[in-house]
Amino acid sequence: MQEPTGIITITTDFGQGDPYVAIMKGVILAINPSAKVVDITHHVQAGSIQEGAIIIKEAYKWFPKGTIHLCVVDPGVGGRRRPIMVLADNHFFVGPDNGLFWPIIELQRDIDIIDLTEKKYWLTDISSTFHGRDIFSPVSAHLSLRVDPFLFGESTSDPTTLDYPIPYQRNSELIGHVIRVDRFGNLITNITEDKLRAFTASKDFVIKVGKIVLKKTSHFYSDAPKGEPLALIASSNFLEIAINMGSASDYLNKECGHGTEVIIEHT
Amino acid sequence: MQEPTGIITITTDFGQGDPYVAIMKGVILAINPSAKVVDITHHVQAGSIQEGAIIIKEAYKWFPKGTIHLCVVDPGVGGRRRPIMVLADNHFFVGPDNGLFWPIIELQRDIDIIDLTEKKYWLTDISSTFHGRDIFSPVSAHLSLRVDPFLFGESTSDPTTLDYPIPYQRNSELIGHVIRVDRFGNLITNITEDKLRAFTASKDFVIKVGKIVLKKTSHFYSDAPKGEPLALIASSNFLEIAINMGSASDYLNKECGHGTEVIIEHT
Amino acid sequence: MQEPTGIITITTDFGQGDPYVAIMKGVILAINPSAKVVDITHHVQAGSIQEGAIIIKEAYKWFPKGTIHLCVVDPGVGGRRRPIMVLADNHFFVGPDNGLFWPIIELQRDIDIIDLTEKKYWLTDISSTFHGRDIFSPVSAHLSLRVDPFLFGESTSDPTTLDYPIPYQRNSELIGHVIRVDRFGNLITNITEDKLRAFTASKDFVIKVGKIVLKKTSHFYSDAPKGEPLALIASSNFLEIAINMGSASDYLNKECGHGTEVIIEHT
Repeated sequence: MQEPTGIITITTDFGQGDPYVAIMKGVILAINPSAKVVDITHHVQAGSIQEGAIIIKEAYKWFPKGTIHLCVVDPGVGGRRRPIMVLADNHFFVGPDNGLFWPIIELQRDIDIIDLTEKKYWLTDISSTFHGRDIFSPVSAHLSLRVDPFLFGESTSDPTTLDYPIPYQRNSELIGHVIRVDRFGNLITNITEDKLRAFTASKDFVIKVGKIVLKKTSHFYSDAPKGEPLALIASSNFLEIAINMGSASDYLNKECGHGTEVIIEHT
Repeated sequence: MQEPTGIITITTDFGQGDPYVAIMKGVILAINPSAKVVDITHHVQAGSIQEGAIIIKEAYKWFPKGTIHLCVVDPGVGGRRRPIMVLADNHFFVGPDNGLFWPIIELQRDIDIIDLTEKKYWLTDISSTFHGRDIFSPVSAHLSLRVDPFLFGESTSDPTTLDYPIPYQRNSELIGHVIRVDRFGNLITNITEDKLRAFTASKDFVIKVGKIVLKKTSHFYSDAPKGEPLALIASSNFLEIAINMGSASDYLNKECGHGTEVIIEHT
Repeated sequence: MQEPTGIITITTDFGQGDPYVAIMKGVILAINPSAKVVDITHHVQAGSIQEGAIIIKEAYKWFPKGTIHLCVVDPGVGGRRRPIMVLADNHFFVGPDNGLFWPIIELQRDIDIIDLTEKKYWLTDISSTFHGRDIFSPVSAHLSLRVDPFLFGESTSDPTTLDYPIPYQRNSELIGHVIRVDRFGNLITNITEDKLRAFTASKDFVIKVGKIVLKKTSHFYSDAPKGEPLALIASSNFLEIAINMGSASDYLNKECGHGTEVIIEHT
């Protein structure tokens, strides 16, 4: 396992209008003034563990090994869910044990999960509504100072899992879902390039989302005429539905968003 | 007084779509390339000194002693209001003398306020519309290089005060107000735990906001059934009205926001 | 030419809800963990090269010499447009050759433009949709480690130009345009102080935007009564139409925005 590098990313559903994220950064810097804090996003839909989980999984791997990823989408704060640290793929993840890290955990063989019980790495007074400030930030800061991960609590092996949509076959169709609509109105699906190629197996196919029907995948946005839809394997290796110089979300009258079915059929 | 640490926080009403905040960071880094700049928020309502003041007071104390807090909510920029620096509670505050720092000043005994008149710590050309760039950023940057605070101008003892709502008793009721609605739709009031306990004095009471009537304070959001309202002492030590897994603001049809009365009655 | 300082600014149209900007920061930090990354804005209107170009030109010069400005407003990503680096005014600019840097290039005499062809400074796998991650971020990171700019590719001298509105005379009027509406509702025009003074030549004039007619420029926002319109030369040295303690955009019923004519007439 790589040692922590001093880089701490933060992902939350706190938005940027309230002082909550800044307070977490203050707590981190009070413990480790040399920590380098980087925002992933604070605009996860309030309480959406699934959206948070997808974003962390997409983003973490581009950071250097040894990065600490502090993630707080925590609708059950103050209740019975455990605070945990996950060591996986040479990265560290700190946050609530509510499924947020499950998509990362389930793909890794060599993994350690620590139940964060050692209170000496927490703030002195623990609120019941802001563990991001009171537990997760100080734990991340102490970890960034290279405190041994196994000193933060006991190892555990039963993390909370997360139900999230996985592409499946229904009769002769491959059924995927839109998992995110980005700022450009691109519909990002959960169908990976490998899954698509394995299903289509070099035969003819169509891709259907709402009223859009496409007979191929393109290589660039500009492969389609301006204003016309296309499908491509996008930067995150997922099938994406887009409009050249436009918004697929608007083209579909905003009726197709998170959760919409994407159907691949042989023709 | 703690020496400056090189950490500078920034709080403004500039938003994040314009280049104004980045320009301030550029000015700071041109003077002190080692400064560590942290955003608190740039989404204070345009010109709302009261909202800015509440956010700064809530956030500053979580940062390490010696942090410089650069705050620009400055509707009177270019007019007669003075630029000031406040030394309080081992933190430094730099911004306009328009009441923004009053909630911090009024609580501290040991305080210094400096009227920023020494132009050698400003940019050479001073605009009449952007003192955040021309005065407050360079002053903060020079201060972060450990220039003696008393070299920036003369001490002063008559800072501008700020009228802001404080809970009071009306007949046999304690009257507070909503001071902020956060991203989750939680209504944060100006009633501290101490004030609430002193008023209720272990007797029965009800809390009323709009159509919500509550007979107790809860410990966690999940103390109420999903979708039901509750009151709790939240992370900032203020009474907060929330909905478990929901938005109190939406529950009240967005009719109760900043300024709404929160009434505590004995029963 | 100043050597790179390790400061990298980022300007994009990616928004802050998706992980794209954070992924770019991860790529940069994986190559140069000491890089200091500063956001300019990520809220450029999707695909608006003109808006991106105006913002970069306004912001860059406040950063220290030797700053690297990584800019990704890139609607033609994956197509035929080249990736370039521009050395101008002791700053470095990295991004697509689509006109984004033209307003800076056209003002400078001493300039170098490098066609980024050297793949050893790119990521290994290049997507067709996210060159911000795969080309521009790693190039910026290697540059921040003081790799010689001329090792990134061949010099070129035919950068893509950008059409953008410039004030002109029509009969006896000076015609400018609104180029940006900021968060306060101020209308920022493309008429510089020099251009205005040269045209008015100390004679009487009126400024017309929508229903607003003004007979002078003011010095401060507070030169006009509260709620009344005024014109002033604002912080960026452009003529700006504002309302004291209000929003000019709202005052004009949001009918005057980007592209609206601003007319200066002799009287």
